[in-house]
Amino acid sequence: MTELAIGVDLNGTSLRIGAFTGGLEPVESISMVTRVAAGPDAVVADIAGGVRRLIQSHLGSGKGAGKLAGVGVGSPGPINLIEGRLGRLPNFPGWDGFALRDALEQALGLPVALECDANAAALAEWKAGAGKEIVVDSMCMLTLGTGVGSGIVLDGKIWHGMVGMGGEAGHVPILPDGPVCGCGSRGCLEMYASATALVRIATEMAVSGEAKDIAQLIEAKKVEGKAITALDLALLARGGGSGARELYRRLGFHLGLGLAGLVSTLDLPLYIIGGGVASAWDLFSDQMFETLHAYSYVYRLGEPSQRLKKEKDKTFVCPAQIGPGAGLLGAAMLPAFGAGRAQGESL
Amino acid sequence: MTELAIGVDLNGTSLRIGAFTGGLEPVESISMVTRVAAGPDAVVADIAGGVRRLIQSHLGSGKGAGKLAGVGVGSPGPINLIEGRLGRLPNFPGWDGFALRDALEQALGLPVALECDANAAALAEWKAGAGKEIVVDSMCMLTLGTGVGSGIVLDGKIWHGMVGMGGEAGHVPILPDGPVCGCGSRGCLEMYASATALVRIATEMAVSGEAKDIAQLIEAKKVEGKAITALDLALLARGGGSGARELYRRLGFHLGLGLAGLVSTLDLPLYIIGGGVASAWDLFSDQMFETLHAYSYVYRLGEPSQRLKKEKDKTFVCPAQIGPGAGLLGAAMLPAFGAGRAQGESL
Repeated sequence: MTELAIGVDLNGTSLRIGAFTGGLEPVESISMVTRVAAGPDAVVADIAGGVRRLIQSHLGSGKGAGKLAGVGVGSPGPINLIEGRLGRLPNFPGWDGFALRDALEQALGLPVALECDANAAALAEWKAGAGKEIVVDSMCMLTLGTGVGSGIVLDGKIWHGMVGMGGEAGHVPILPDGPVCGCGSRGCLEMYASATALVRIATEMAVSGEAKDIAQLIEAKKVEGKAITALDLALLARGGGSGARELYRRLGFHLGLGLAGLVSTLDLPLYIIGGGVASAWDLFSDQMFETLHAYSYVYRLGEPSQRLKKEKDKTFVCPAQIGPGAGLLGAAMLPAFGAGRAQGESL
Repeated sequence: MTELAIGVDLNGTSLRIGAFTGGLEPVESISMVTRVAAGPDAVVADIAGGVRRLIQSHLGSGKGAGKLAGVGVGSPGPINLIEGRLGRLPNFPGWDGFALRDALEQALGLPVALECDANAAALAEWKAGAGKEIVVDSMCMLTLGTGVGSGIVLDGKIWHGMVGMGGEAGHVPILPDGPVCGCGSRGCLEMYASATALVRIATEMAVSGEAKDIAQLIEAKKVEGKAITALDLALLARGGGSGARELYRRLGFHLGLGLAGLVSTLDLPLYIIGGGVASAWDLFSDQMFETLHAYSYVYRLGEPSQRLKKEKDKTFVCPAQIGPGAGLLGAAMLPAFGAGRAQGESL
């Protein structure tokens, strides 16, 4: 009898629904635009339609039918996991407080596990990606994308905190005089280590005259009617652009500061750096390791003899392996891991 | 049948050994000077002698004898909890790597639970102090003393990380350009929120001419042949000294930054501020709460309607209740909580 796990990766731009075997091999996936403006009910209908189609195609019915391992959904946070309710998501205007889990369970007639997308990605990297061969009970993944997400696994369970907000390491203040973040605080890690932050800082460096290579890139892109991206900046740095190289060095510094706080607080054996920005590992990791070494004595005590060498009781920091599919795979893994609900501490 | 729990609170200056009933009522305690210079064997003999004396006095022997709940020891960190071995402790020169737990177990012929002193204090405040009536599974305590210690309890267990270094929140960088810390890093919370830091910053404020009240206090103390203490500075602030008030406001700011990082990362229901400096709660807590509010959106989402009001699923930050005896009581509680060994993650 086959087993089928369904994952849903929802963000403000795209909606992906994937079917995986019990062994986590991909079977089929569906991609569509997220109809944010059409409202939550329309998007719930899109998700439910896709999930049903995959179940019908690959699970069969009657005698010889396979077994559904479960349906998991990764969504941008904040999410109140006790209530399965979205918080105020900047990319979902008008959706504030929407009870996504209930709506999906009702539409599907099935239990649904709902998690922050960064937690779903962490689960995938932990069990099927960079953490696969390391075998640790605890880890943390930082996802450097449009924002900086984080997922923390402690003693084998996703750490949720009180109502599902645990693991917002992207919003730890690393420079209290820094710019105002989308969350309303100042100097969050997200303001220095996301793709958005890279473009902002690069533009500042170009405007101030500090980075002529970046200024030229911005001009060239403008002629094409385009804005620069983190990927453009990485290519510029690899081509020898000194401003772009400095930009990624600074990213490494700020990321190292954020990691130093995590390592000193939690002392985990594994930290994975994922998201689109992590593909520039060659450009920022030297400085990241130097800063982590300089700012965390807990790291210095547990520093491996070589970077990227796995040693027992040493702190291992490495790039993600799965890439952009981690969120979808992790979502499909949620039900099997009993994830998707908050610890539910009470006073 | 009576039950007796023995706690040992070891630091670079004093050694306290206490006997408690099963219900954690104090029975008898012994205080002595820690003979650091005489070496670890001498101090182990002092501890073992004291523990044996308390057991003989209060447990009896033969028929009608009580039951020993266990022996717990709180020591300054870092400690390798897997091996029960001290790290490099600044106040214990020449003790590097000493296998304290083995030595004590051998001297006593009994199992011994060894923990960092900040973890022991956190255990006491969690179960018998400020956390007693709140009933949470997870909490964090910051101990503002000579340094800044921290103890983190997650899902009912002291969080140790890989080899016992988890929960070193005193060494999270909060201002990367800050002064060099005793740990070798720069700008650690400990450099802003310990009693030592208060005296250092106060002296800087006096020398720069920014705080005339503190400058006068330093001169007055000098006449007596004494140095200023955090307590002197708190009295000066309560007396209206504007420089001293500003000093404590800054403490609140830095502590708020440290808390913001912890709240955003872990989203726990309870944070307790303890140690000698916490007695100046009236002088720093307003600014601490303001900074925490400003720098953590996770806190803003879980902020209680009134400070110091316990509400379900809200973040509660409060001063410790037990005072300087928390370390000793917590040490005695270690064996019953199965604490004193590391999680022991492995690659």
